[in-house]
Amino acid sequence: MSDPQRYVLTFGCPDRTGIIARISGFLADHGGMIVEAAYHTDPDSGWFFTRQVVRADSLPFDAEGLRERFGEVAGELSAESSWQVRDTGERPRAVVLVSKAGHCLYDLLGRVASGELDVDIAAVIGNHDSLADITRAHGIPFHHVPFPAGDPDGKAAAFAKVRELVDAHDPHAIVLARFMQVLPAELCEAWAGRALNIHHSFLPSFIGAKPYHQAHTRGVKLVGATCHYVTADLDAGPIIEQDVIRVDHGDSVQDLVRKGRDIEKVTLARGLRWHLEGRVLVHGNRTMVL
Amino acid sequence: MSDPQRYVLTFGCPDRTGIIARISGFLADHGGMIVEAAYHTDPDSGWFFTRQVVRADSLPFDAEGLRERFGEVAGELSAESSWQVRDTGERPRAVVLVSKAGHCLYDLLGRVASGELDVDIAAVIGNHDSLADITRAHGIPFHHVPFPAGDPDGKAAAFAKVRELVDAHDPHAIVLARFMQVLPAELCEAWAGRALNIHHSFLPSFIGAKPYHQAHTRGVKLVGATCHYVTADLDAGPIIEQDVIRVDHGDSVQDLVRKGRDIEKVTLARGLRWHLEGRVLVHGNRTMVL
Amino acid sequence: MSDPQRYVLTFGCPDRTGIIARISGFLADHGGMIVEAAYHTDPDSGWFFTRQVVRADSLPFDAEGLRERFGEVAGELSAESSWQVRDTGERPRAVVLVSKAGHCLYDLLGRVASGELDVDIAAVIGNHDSLADITRAHGIPFHHVPFPAGDPDGKAAAFAKVRELVDAHDPHAIVLARFMQVLPAELCEAWAGRALNIHHSFLPSFIGAKPYHQAHTRGVKLVGATCHYVTADLDAGPIIEQDVIRVDHGDSVQDLVRKGRDIEKVTLARGLRWHLEGRVLVHGNRTMVL
Amino acid sequence: MSDPQRYVLTFGCPDRTGIIARISGFLADHGGMIVEAAYHTDPDSGWFFTRQVVRADSLPFDAEGLRERFGEVAGELSAESSWQVRDTGERPRAVVLVSKAGHCLYDLLGRVASGELDVDIAAVIGNHDSLADITRAHGIPFHHVPFPAGDPDGKAAAFAKVRELVDAHDPHAIVLARFMQVLPAELCEAWAGRALNIHHSFLPSFIGAKPYHQAHTRGVKLVGATCHYVTADLDAGPIIEQDVIRVDHGDSVQDLVRKGRDIEKVTLARGLRWHLEGRVLVHGNRTMVL
Repeated sequence: MSDPQRYVLTFGCPDRTGIIARISGFLADHGGMIVEAAYHTDPDSGWFFTRQVVRADSLPFDAEGLRERFGEVAGELSAESSWQVRDTGERPRAVVLVSKAGHCLYDLLGRVASGELDVDIAAVIGNHDSLADITRAHGIPFHHVPFPAGDPDGKAAAFAKVRELVDAHDPHAIVLARFMQVLPAELCEAWAGRALNIHHSFLPSFIGAKPYHQAHTRGVKLVGATCHYVTADLDAGPIIEQDVIRVDHGDSVQDLVRKGRDIEKVTLARGLRWHLEGRVLVHGNRTMVL
Repeated sequence: MSDPQRYVLTFGCPDRTGIIARISGFLADHGGMIVEAAYHTDPDSGWFFTRQVVRADSLPFDAEGLRERFGEVAGELSAESSWQVRDTGERPRAVVLVSKAGHCLYDLLGRVASGELDVDIAAVIGNHDSLADITRAHGIPFHHVPFPAGDPDGKAAAFAKVRELVDAHDPHAIVLARFMQVLPAELCEAWAGRALNIHHSFLPSFIGAKPYHQAHTRGVKLVGATCHYVTADLDAGPIIEQDVIRVDHGDSVQDLVRKGRDIEKVTLARGLRWHLEGRVLVHGNRTMVL
Repeated sequence: MSDPQRYVLTFGCPDRTGIIARISGFLADHGGMIVEAAYHTDPDSGWFFTRQVVRADSLPFDAEGLRERFGEVAGELSAESSWQVRDTGERPRAVVLVSKAGHCLYDLLGRVASGELDVDIAAVIGNHDSLADITRAHGIPFHHVPFPAGDPDGKAAAFAKVRELVDAHDPHAIVLARFMQVLPAELCEAWAGRALNIHHSFLPSFIGAKPYHQAHTRGVKLVGATCHYVTADLDAGPIIEQDVIRVDHGDSVQDLVRKGRDIEKVTLARGLRWHLEGRVLVHGNRTMVL
Repeated sequence: MSDPQRYVLTFGCPDRTGIIARISGFLADHGGMIVEAAYHTDPDSGWFFTRQVVRADSLPFDAEGLRERFGEVAGELSAESSWQVRDTGERPRAVVLVSKAGHCLYDLLGRVASGELDVDIAAVIGNHDSLADITRAHGIPFHHVPFPAGDPDGKAAAFAKVRELVDAHDPHAIVLARFMQVLPAELCEAWAGRALNIHHSFLPSFIGAKPYHQAHTRGVKLVGATCHYVTADLDAGPIIEQDVIRVDHGDSVQDLVRKGRDIEKVTLARGLRWHLEGRVLVHGNRTMVL
């Protein structure tokens, strides 16, 4: 909260000798004070990844200046477009998509209100209006966009409306907080790397509808939740975070739903926090959380 | 939620042969349909405990009638006062005590609003007023009772006021949701078995103030939370529920506070749910969750 | 270990009023001292289940006598064959099937040697002989039965040999401790309810071969293990126990294998213990652990 | 196992700008291929720490040559003696101290035998001889050093004998695998940073004797284990790893002992692995696991 302004550099390139020396040498040459650094080399793909956090006041230029100068280093290292510089001086914006189930929304609103999650929730959009009041009680606009069942044209129009409402805020994160509608492929593409979904199972178990019912039928002893980036392939995008909770034979489907909600909430909150802090790097269909 | 009305019988007595037969025989004789039953025999104390849930519409009398008739059985079995019958037809009431930190209150309000926690929050009382707005947005009265620092008389008067406000509702649960004030002995006694506290450590580690600071100094690899009944002995009452979350060397005290909050919320919510469902039996300084 | 002899009664029947009264009345009439009791009513199937543990010296007859007399009660309650009485005075026997990976076998041998797992390992059978020495160091016979690759007749003969070796001990448990061979349907049937497998994934994720490779490719954040009864349907039998462990992007497939092993060992050990103690009741494809 | 030879550099110094650049520049100048790198800056102490793993065949000198040349860099950065270079080409040695309880020893022996834990167990020393046979079955010498109760001189002589036996191997790790004897201060000092203990509680809860009994009396809902470096202050040394397992009111002290053992085993195994891999850096009374 009261942390001094920092620049968060995330970077990936084909691995070779001297990358760390090149990047840290560049930063040191300009007096950059690194306050957090993480590295990962992936032996399967032969790629190298890093996330570095530098105090803004230790550098003689601003974020744009850093991007310009670092671009040369990135070019040398063949990183092409797989790097970025985030400025913590700019507060990130999110738009949240919901349906009827409010537990994830209540949780996110509570975290923002208590200062725990550093994000500006620009708007909440629901295909039902049952969560309008609580949203507005937090001083956040709520947009009701009904999705007519069994009407493909109406649904397409609804998605167009949602897209317009979302894109108006150019958000850093689009959070599907139990939205219950499958995003069309063009939205998945438009929001690639920014749209996070919370799926109410430990993927890849129980893809698709009613995962708690599927879990009850299979008789599993743990239920879980998965926060992942949305891709055109249903419930198959890169996984950011997962967690589970123990259940037993005495738990009805409704008990699984209730217990699972606690896991959905923390899994989504952790995934969103890491995304906003620039900790999540994606390579192929896997994430690194640095 | 839409469950049919039930009577929840909790019972403890010195162990001997035939107790289950006596109780279940009594219920069967009156046509009682048991929908949930749990038993525990404690070899250390030589006591027997049970919790039985009976469908109200299977019995030919109401809760009061059940209490009268079962009283005879309890007498035979030397249970004295260690039994009770709860009627799910009567919605339980809770009063929540808070200070400045809102995460537990936000969480409880969200659970009640989404229908997950079946309790009527009759009032919220705070020694600061920072949580007044969110409480009232949920349609719940908020009472601000300041506690003057360094003024024992003022503090005693404040506690007297809190007691008056709480007792006006005759609540089934008094929830200290990070209240940060130590209850005086007479309140502990008056509210014995009804006052639940959430302590932000895995007790008995880090009793008292600033447990996350203590945890950071000791370098533990997990932090936790404990929901317990309040007794006159600070942080030493019977433990209802505990949980932990992993931390590491990279976590600052503030990170421990943030991670710990997620555990405080679920630990308190589980403990409160079990208490309201009549699942928590106390014997000596230990609880059984049946 | 030094526990007095007990009879463990497990029982299931269609639910109706008065079952607990009937069973506990029967036991009380004969002076039976119940030391542990668990009940479960399954609303989906409308069945009732119970596990009761009675001190042998409190009853005026032996296990066979109890079976005879209780048979009448079971008949009244339409339990048919879904009940049994286990006598803790008879030490259970197990046969363990292994391949090359020794971690589960080492673990089981250590638990038996240290008195933690109360079972007589009658024999270990391996399709390789790499675990022969450690088995024999524990004073247990090891049988090497090679499984010729790509030779269906040879494989059938090998399974016939395994069956003969196993059945010679009439074991209470046949433990597939990373056996890596799919049991033929007739063996699944012959050993139904007695053959336990440990699968190295959190089922139903990653059924079949190389689950850790599958998990790595999918980029999951937890890996798990599942102990289940073996049925003719691969990795689809009733689940007894599951557990998981956290992994991250830095973990190679070999790291997943290593971390997963710790979960395989405890999951198998818990499942086997519960099976041997008569805690696991099966109904349809689900288990109750009472 | 078949990993190519690597040098593991661990390093700590007062934080300032340019440390990463200096170290990585040094390595890059000599062609060093970094395969793993971790950094941590501790804002409380103002110290910087790193662990770097370099492929041996990428450098033009051996471990001793690396130590000589890196010593200059370390001097520049005021690291003084707080750095070291470990050569994975030299297999580490451990000596294990035990008493009667064998679960941790069985577990360690199984891990070494199955190739999971890359260490040479040079000897096992017991104050009882009950674990001699299993030790020798693994081809490892066992030394029986009785500790006479109530005889301080005899005890001092026994410790002198233990010290002689241990020091003969100059081990990288001295593992107190439920040794149950408090090391005298001079041994704590002689083995500082090399002696690991497994304590059977979640420290700082339940320091000292019979922690499972203490846990049962307090009625906690989780029990745990702690792997820590041994210091002269009982159970107060720097914590390397901790874990917990859920228990409930139905668990006797013996059940806590049994459940806790599974946690003791994995906690000790993880702590020992990290220690042997040079991942554990100590600063004050806290560890960093890099």
